[in-house]
Amino acid sequence: MRRMTLKSAILNLLLPLGFAVAYPVASNAEGTHVSQSSVRNVILIIGDGMDDQQIAIARNYLKGVTGRLVLDDMPVRSSVQVLTVDNTDPSQYLYVADSANSATAMSTGVVTSRARIATTAKEDEDIPTIIELAHQAGFKTGIVTTSTVTDATPASFAAHISLRFCETPESMVTKRFDCSKDKKSNGGPGSISEQLAVSSLNVLFGGGREHFIVNTEDGSQTIENLARDNGFDIIYTRQELIDADPGKKQLGLFAAKHLPIKLQGENGRIAEQPEVTPEGVKLPSPMRCEDNPGYKSTPSLQLMAEKALKNLSHNNDKGFFLMIESALIDKQSHVRNPCGSIGELDQLNETVASVLAFADSQPDTLVLVTADHTQAAQLVPATSLFAGLGIPIYTPGSMARIKMPDGGVMGVNYATNRIFAEEHTGAAVPLYSNDLGKERVKTYITQPDIFQIVRSFLEL
Amino acid sequence: MRRMTLKSAILNLLLPLGFAVAYPVASNAEGTHVSQSSVRNVILIIGDGMDDQQIAIARNYLKGVTGRLVLDDMPVRSSVQVLTVDNTDPSQYLYVADSANSATAMSTGVVTSRARIATTAKEDEDIPTIIELAHQAGFKTGIVTTSTVTDATPASFAAHISLRFCETPESMVTKRFDCSKDKKSNGGPGSISEQLAVSSLNVLFGGGREHFIVNTEDGSQTIENLARDNGFDIIYTRQELIDADPGKKQLGLFAAKHLPIKLQGENGRIAEQPEVTPEGVKLPSPMRCEDNPGYKSTPSLQLMAEKALKNLSHNNDKGFFLMIESALIDKQSHVRNPCGSIGELDQLNETVASVLAFADSQPDTLVLVTADHTQAAQLVPATSLFAGLGIPIYTPGSMARIKMPDGGVMGVNYATNRIFAEEHTGAAVPLYSNDLGKERVKTYITQPDIFQIVRSFLEL
Repeated sequence: MRRMTLKSAILNLLLPLGFAVAYPVASNAEGTHVSQSSVRNVILIIGDGMDDQQIAIARNYLKGVTGRLVLDDMPVRSSVQVLTVDNTDPSQYLYVADSANSATAMSTGVVTSRARIATTAKEDEDIPTIIELAHQAGFKTGIVTTSTVTDATPASFAAHISLRFCETPESMVTKRFDCSKDKKSNGGPGSISEQLAVSSLNVLFGGGREHFIVNTEDGSQTIENLARDNGFDIIYTRQELIDADPGKKQLGLFAAKHLPIKLQGENGRIAEQPEVTPEGVKLPSPMRCEDNPGYKSTPSLQLMAEKALKNLSHNNDKGFFLMIESALIDKQSHVRNPCGSIGELDQLNETVASVLAFADSQPDTLVLVTADHTQAAQLVPATSLFAGLGIPIYTPGSMARIKMPDGGVMGVNYATNRIFAEEHTGAAVPLYSNDLGKERVKTYITQPDIFQIVRSFLEL
Repeated sequence: MRRMTLKSAILNLLLPLGFAVAYPVASNAEGTHVSQSSVRNVILIIGDGMDDQQIAIARNYLKGVTGRLVLDDMPVRSSVQVLTVDNTDPSQYLYVADSANSATAMSTGVVTSRARIATTAKEDEDIPTIIELAHQAGFKTGIVTTSTVTDATPASFAAHISLRFCETPESMVTKRFDCSKDKKSNGGPGSISEQLAVSSLNVLFGGGREHFIVNTEDGSQTIENLARDNGFDIIYTRQELIDADPGKKQLGLFAAKHLPIKLQGENGRIAEQPEVTPEGVKLPSPMRCEDNPGYKSTPSLQLMAEKALKNLSHNNDKGFFLMIESALIDKQSHVRNPCGSIGELDQLNETVASVLAFADSQPDTLVLVTADHTQAAQLVPATSLFAGLGIPIYTPGSMARIKMPDGGVMGVNYATNRIFAEEHTGAAVPLYSNDLGKERVKTYITQPDIFQIVRSFLEL
């Protein structure tokens, strides 16, 4: 959490990692390179854990195997390498990321270690984020997510802390982790919710109210009140979101924890282990995906995104940066719920449609859609390729067989480990862009390049 | 195996599947649309089972996590949906392909059922392949693979049979499958090796000599002699390939079965199941990848490709179609050998470099690099994301931990089933192209679109 000046931080951190571009904060702060003549916006949409397997699973269910997602018709399609280093030896790459280090790569251009929120591996130095840089240059900024707003991905764009778990003052030190250096009483910036409450964000929508109704570290007031003192209008419900005043800073906390998911398995079923009996192996029976009744009363990701766009574009002759995350694609894959991941990818896809419509109405709006890392779920044959052998064939992990709208059955396998949650995987992730990406996004980039693309587009 | 005319076959098969383009065989046969002024070549490179997980695993090992494969620098990167239908009800899509139906989609533009070689689902009608169409229009044609030349992918470009397993006369009918309708004595085209022996191909390189030293169905001669009668110069060794006359039809059979792989696990190790003991769980010990000693004497995929290009471009003022397959990425993933798949992806990547160099020297050469389907291997954390919990965490399947050249350790998981071979998976596959693909390949296409792109480029 050691504080650095913005310029020295960037120079110190980017250059050793191979970024040869000198960082023109000073000159831009004086306006020498910034064109004042036009509005420029960037909307970065992140599907947490949205890899090609998840996309195929969702497409097959939502649109049919020959159908197309909104994503599929975007004009630019790239592949993004995810980079992660070891915390004790940052010269050593690991091969699988978590959402904190991958979001940090996108928000800061710096490769760090797992669980870190916009801080460097080992040295634990705060790294300026694209949202902070955009705000300093006069852009409005916003974050929208379906997780708690304090979760790793949103936090990495607007907070700095050594561990993602330190979301509230009371969670700064536990048996398993220690953020004591980041405590305010130790000269640090405080927990994630405290940092978000005093942030420069214009819009912050998601879940996690439970992290804001607790007291600040010094016990003087709730974190919600801290946010109000910082000018935030705090809203709790879908209706309040619809009615909210777009001219004010807005903190929307629409659930105590993560927002409710859109789809769930029939009667709450998730992937199950095949049943092995003396008579043979019984695969899980096929199931439908069904609406989650709890979803109706929550604002959809699409509604939150549309309201964020309304706020950020309101009386704005400079432009904005908005990060929108469909967070629960990943979380539902961790808990082996394929219907859950499908519904959250549907939410992302609907949101992309709204965002592209907005971008069509505002010509200098760069839209990037990507994922932070790949996940465990695999689309597997509902009937084995080797079924002709006449021997029992079944996954060693858990499997769901989903009844498809077209009458087919789709198999989804989860088998990266045996505990309550699946692992992430380490392939490159997709990135889609609108036409403005054509000259800016190469066919294969790394996650820190996303920071550079946005920075360059906004002339930061 | 029912025979159709080319034109009626295409009209009957493509139109119901949504292809609105009328098929101009007759007019092209008369030369009305064909430009005679320039040479046009297409090189289609297929990495069997080469999905984004396999690419990341190979890139990390071969080039380092921040390094780049030749693929990564290609200017076009698309995503290709793989389509498969049920054999008894072709209106019903399945969600996971095998190499036969996916290669058939690319070679004919028609979606069929698993195990079929350029024949339609249910009706079992032969479908003209891009190689047959190209030959009829005066192009030279070739196939290069690291598998037997009779294996599903190469066969689907130059043969027609109801089941991929029917590679030789004696394998046409067994306990588990029946190609009797395709037997010559029943008016069919015969087994795959017999069909290849009498094919119009100019070049056919790979393994599978054991399928050519057997007798033809009528017992009159060996299939090799049938190929010789058809004008093929038959070559067996790397040196013979180097010395071969590029002016003749060439059948290269460089191994009895598939060609030897390039890399293997230390002491032949593959992925292993974690050992569960009363003292705790022991993950497989990290291992190196090492050279396979048997590989040295075999021609590499790159050498075979270069020699095929030399043959096909020799005295050729029309152009050619060449399919090159790195077949064993998939087969090594089936048997849980990550080092094997890495080495075969290395072979593909080296071959792409040679092919792009050739394309640079012949301006109208369209290069497409893709995969036929996704596979089971997953790049997983060498140390679990949940390691901090202090509980045993291990895959329910098999895992390899690979010692990386940069000093790290990379985990690879195989856990789609418990039998001797892993399943395929059902995500979309990558497609890369050179500059000629820019206006021709959209960001999201289906496998039959690849046939249409090639057909259109060659004006067939």
